[in-house]
Amino acid sequence: MAHPTVTMKGAPFDRAAIEIYGGVSGLYDYGPSGCALQANIVDTWRKEFVLEENMLEVDCTMLTPHEVLKTSGHVDKFADWMTKDPKTGEIFRADHIVEEILEARLKGDKEARGQKVDDEEKEDPKKKKKKVKVIKAEKLDDAVVKDYEEVLAKIDNYNGEELGELIKKYNIRNPANDGELEPPKAFNLMFQTSIGPSANSPAYLRPETAQGQFLNFQKLLEFNQQAMPFASASIGKSFRNEISPRAGLLRVREFLMAEIEHFVDPQSGKKHPRFVEVKDVELELLNREVQLSGKTDVKTTPIGEAVERGIVDNETLGYFLARIQLFLLKIGVDKSKIRFRQHMRNEMAHYAADCWDAELLTSYGWIECVGCADRSAYDLTVHAKRTGAPLVVRETLREPLRIEEWQIDLDKKKFGPKFKKDGKAVEAAIEALTQDVREKLALELKENGKITVDVNGVGDGKVDVGKDLVAIEKRTRVESTREYTPNVIEPSFGIGRILYALCEHVHWTRSGDEARGVLSFPPLIAPTKVLIVPLSAHPDFQPLIHDLSKKLRTRRISSRVDSSNASIGKRYSRNDELGTPFGLTVDFQSVKDKTYTLRDRDTTKQVRAGEDAILEAIVSLTEGTESWEDVAKRLPAFEGQEVD
Amino acid sequence: MAHPTVTMKGAPFDRAAIEIYGGVSGLYDYGPSGCALQANIVDTWRKEFVLEENMLEVDCTMLTPHEVLKTSGHVDKFADWMTKDPKTGEIFRADHIVEEILEARLKGDKEARGQKVDDEEKEDPKKKKKKVKVIKAEKLDDAVVKDYEEVLAKIDNYNGEELGELIKKYNIRNPANDGELEPPKAFNLMFQTSIGPSANSPAYLRPETAQGQFLNFQKLLEFNQQAMPFASASIGKSFRNEISPRAGLLRVREFLMAEIEHFVDPQSGKKHPRFVEVKDVELELLNREVQLSGKTDVKTTPIGEAVERGIVDNETLGYFLARIQLFLLKIGVDKSKIRFRQHMRNEMAHYAADCWDAELLTSYGWIECVGCADRSAYDLTVHAKRTGAPLVVRETLREPLRIEEWQIDLDKKKFGPKFKKDGKAVEAAIEALTQDVREKLALELKENGKITVDVNGVGDGKVDVGKDLVAIEKRTRVESTREYTPNVIEPSFGIGRILYALCEHVHWTRSGDEARGVLSFPPLIAPTKVLIVPLSAHPDFQPLIHDLSKKLRTRRISSRVDSSNASIGKRYSRNDELGTPFGLTVDFQSVKDKTYTLRDRDTTKQVRAGEDAILEAIVSLTEGTESWEDVAKRLPAFEGQEVD
Repeated sequence: MAHPTVTMKGAPFDRAAIEIYGGVSGLYDYGPSGCALQANIVDTWRKEFVLEENMLEVDCTMLTPHEVLKTSGHVDKFADWMTKDPKTGEIFRADHIVEEILEARLKGDKEARGQKVDDEEKEDPKKKKKKVKVIKAEKLDDAVVKDYEEVLAKIDNYNGEELGELIKKYNIRNPANDGELEPPKAFNLMFQTSIGPSANSPAYLRPETAQGQFLNFQKLLEFNQQAMPFASASIGKSFRNEISPRAGLLRVREFLMAEIEHFVDPQSGKKHPRFVEVKDVELELLNREVQLSGKTDVKTTPIGEAVERGIVDNETLGYFLARIQLFLLKIGVDKSKIRFRQHMRNEMAHYAADCWDAELLTSYGWIECVGCADRSAYDLTVHAKRTGAPLVVRETLREPLRIEEWQIDLDKKKFGPKFKKDGKAVEAAIEALTQDVREKLALELKENGKITVDVNGVGDGKVDVGKDLVAIEKRTRVESTREYTPNVIEPSFGIGRILYALCEHVHWTRSGDEARGVLSFPPLIAPTKVLIVPLSAHPDFQPLIHDLSKKLRTRRISSRVDSSNASIGKRYSRNDELGTPFGLTVDFQSVKDKTYTLRDRDTTKQVRAGEDAILEAIVSLTEGTESWEDVAKRLPAFEGQEVD
Repeated sequence: MAHPTVTMKGAPFDRAAIEIYGGVSGLYDYGPSGCALQANIVDTWRKEFVLEENMLEVDCTMLTPHEVLKTSGHVDKFADWMTKDPKTGEIFRADHIVEEILEARLKGDKEARGQKVDDEEKEDPKKKKKKVKVIKAEKLDDAVVKDYEEVLAKIDNYNGEELGELIKKYNIRNPANDGELEPPKAFNLMFQTSIGPSANSPAYLRPETAQGQFLNFQKLLEFNQQAMPFASASIGKSFRNEISPRAGLLRVREFLMAEIEHFVDPQSGKKHPRFVEVKDVELELLNREVQLSGKTDVKTTPIGEAVERGIVDNETLGYFLARIQLFLLKIGVDKSKIRFRQHMRNEMAHYAADCWDAELLTSYGWIECVGCADRSAYDLTVHAKRTGAPLVVRETLREPLRIEEWQIDLDKKKFGPKFKKDGKAVEAAIEALTQDVREKLALELKENGKITVDVNGVGDGKVDVGKDLVAIEKRTRVESTREYTPNVIEPSFGIGRILYALCEHVHWTRSGDEARGVLSFPPLIAPTKVLIVPLSAHPDFQPLIHDLSKKLRTRRISSRVDSSNASIGKRYSRNDELGTPFGLTVDFQSVKDKTYTLRDRDTTKQVRAGEDAILEAIVSLTEGTESWEDVAKRLPAFEGQEVD
């Protein structure tokens, strides 16, 4: 349902889709504004994370061999449930069709009871693609209403079998023709293809950038000169073959991700050396317990306190939660529309230690935009097991460990003659004995001159081994290196979703004038920084415009010239809608003395000064070293032109 | 064959492949150095093209519906020829197997004749994957040798049928088992997949970014406020499902492209307003005529002269050729290893007006790294025709055109009664008449009271139409808008190939010491700009290192600290191999007075100064506003430490 607390308009940025071919849903192109915005967000991300933390950025291929994703578990588990109308061949995502039909029935019930069904509920933007168009006004039993509401509250948590039961129990049918639906089947969400001309090299488009980073772990560790902890990072497209995408730009089949894999020693307590820098950052936390009690109340908590009290599992996870928020604020996300929601135990992968999502409030409700999970040692372990590659850290111990242990010596030459074909099995069984058992057997050997060992499948399962074949002794072993599989903390950013939410957060309309939208992007990430507006088409203006453009370019500040016939006010408001923060007016006075007017998008105030001062102000405003208020104090105000 | 004039070593940068899974050829990951290098090249490209020319950058999806690529011609024509051994199922790229076997026979002939087969020829890096491993020393007839050599010279130009004939004629067989090979079949080079759960949405991974830009033409024109000419640009991965990739990083299945589509009015003479800025840039041109005469002599020609003399078709094409060279030089490509080769007529797509490749010399020979084609109006025309979308420019004419023409008036009501079911066909035939014919018929009508028109399929193909049904008159029509399909000039950069060639061009070894490789990347694009080297592990050094790192970060300059135990010389040479241009040594003197030593990678010279002066020097060196020579003049030389 459309979220009632967000009243700002949706995204007016360029959403150029491949629509001259009728549009394939879930695939969107970014036009010039969207593309520049995306590039600026990525650029800021790279500075805030890769450069700031000396992360090792990698660029791995999207095409990923079957074996890799089989091992990671994606081939078996990365799926949604679909249900088919066997008569028409139409396919529905099972949870969506149950949800839509129950919601439609509840609305019909409301209408039958004479209750108001508000327009927002009728025209839910999230359901634009919904199949259920007609609401039949039909009263339901109170118990049924309660039932439906309970199912809807848990709709994300049903597995295929359960969805099949719901379809049967509630008689969910194809809304188009009332046709019966088949029991749900799993549909793998990866795009499949094949490498080369033979059919035996299946591959997928990656569903995340993470696996490529794990596969390169050894080389990265080597590049980092074996130093731990360290992080790798990757920015690139990932893919998800949605059954039927909805919610516009929020659920797409091809999307840009920026992912970090921070590798830590699990025995380090997952401390982070820079945690102290962020410990006072306050986050809005929605923890597991609150959600379990059926509530969504957030609690403002400094991250230092959250880690100390065990709400957030460890420092490294906490460090990144704080850094995620700082990044979001830097690019202009509204602080009051950020919350961090902890995953429920059944939401997390079984190997995950803890997981929090940064959610941003939009007209679609709270949307997961950044995930931050402790993936433990799972991925490195499964890949190492499958390939035999040692995806581990070998650490020289400062003080070698002295380990007292019961060691077993076997006279292996005698095993063959004595046990024949069972020799190897008996050896293996003895070598697998635990320390506790060894201690007991050492005594037995001393007392009886033989030990009795369980060996599955040999004789009656018990084998006697005499002291001529075996000796057990307590000795001290010295270990100078330690080998371990690192744990991984993974902050994973959905750039497209962040971009979309940001557009909602910075959108407003000038008061008293509904038609004039403004996107108040921070100058740092605005697609275009400066609009150059000549007041007239007089040829004398040309060299000035040319000169200004060139000087801005040299400073790497993107500008556009609008020399159309439209009024200056109209030209500014067109660029307010694109989020251009500054306007530079060239007028007849400029031709005489090279002074220019600089206009601030948000306040529409203007200052006037000579070329150098104006250019310098633009640079400091764009880099964020000065605010408009600072500039307005320094430079004389200008109120000459009519721009509104 | 390995090119003899290039003796520098191959690329030592990080080529981390997914090799723990046994490696899938044609898929390479970039590790930290390669990834940073790529990001810096892309960043420079964006500045030099998108920002410099106010191009409209777009980001389109890689997944592309079947219909789009069917229309563009890729589904039918984007293919290589493969041939199969039906017994083993082994598949070969037809031109490659012919080439390899003929080459092997020529080598065997040389050996049989007692001629030297040099090692380079035996271990050709381009043929690492070659199937033909054993050379049988067998003498060939002189005529056969000549025959083979002629075939090899033209090996890229055979079609499937011709390759099939060569396979038969020269008895080309599977080298592994001498098995017969099937006639070549076309293998489409696009990776195919399917969108959504039903089987009826086939799609491909794009083979170029261009199509997405064409599909968005209307929106881009609108964004540009209908102003022409303009250019769009796109940076992103494209895909090519090679039959059997070889030549390492030069022929891969997934690669980064940066493409520009510059849209021009075909009636403008394809002039470019900024051509004057580049007209004196000298390019090494290898034109069509020289190649036709069997030669490869390049001619140094200022681009202004080349366009004037018609060697390069038009100003816009010439402008981009010059800009391509300037870009390549900026990122550090060796000027003496750039040439521009014009496509032969049979190499170009039939619609292309002209096409030049920027080729870079590497150990693999001259490699096509940037293509620059005039694609005419082909793509916009085919997409418009297929979809009905008006991919055109409508231009208001400054002075309306007055066109005198013969106009035909038909009394359509009478056509049905007179011609019955043929009425429409007759009407259409009359309306399709050319001006010349109309003029003639006007006279005929006046003289005979009727005209005779050819109408295919009606009666005997000749139809008489009387003056009661038709009138022909000369009138003046006024046209105030002009509608045209723009032509497209397309500079298309293969970033991976440029990156590879660059690594070869900047690689050298310090004289007298073969083992010490250096990559002399320009500071602008070097993966890491500064190596911070503490002379000791003393704790007093820590705050200084921390402080320097932070100050460099603030200036967006990437640095790494090497506090390993290795000697300072060893640490520097490790970073020379990674191409890090500057070293910053922290020693005991630094702890006392915050002075530091700055080392230049290429000269190994050092200067010493206080923190501010050193940081300032690093910034200006990295941004390219000062050279090392400038800095060495300003700051005192330092010769204290032993670094070599």
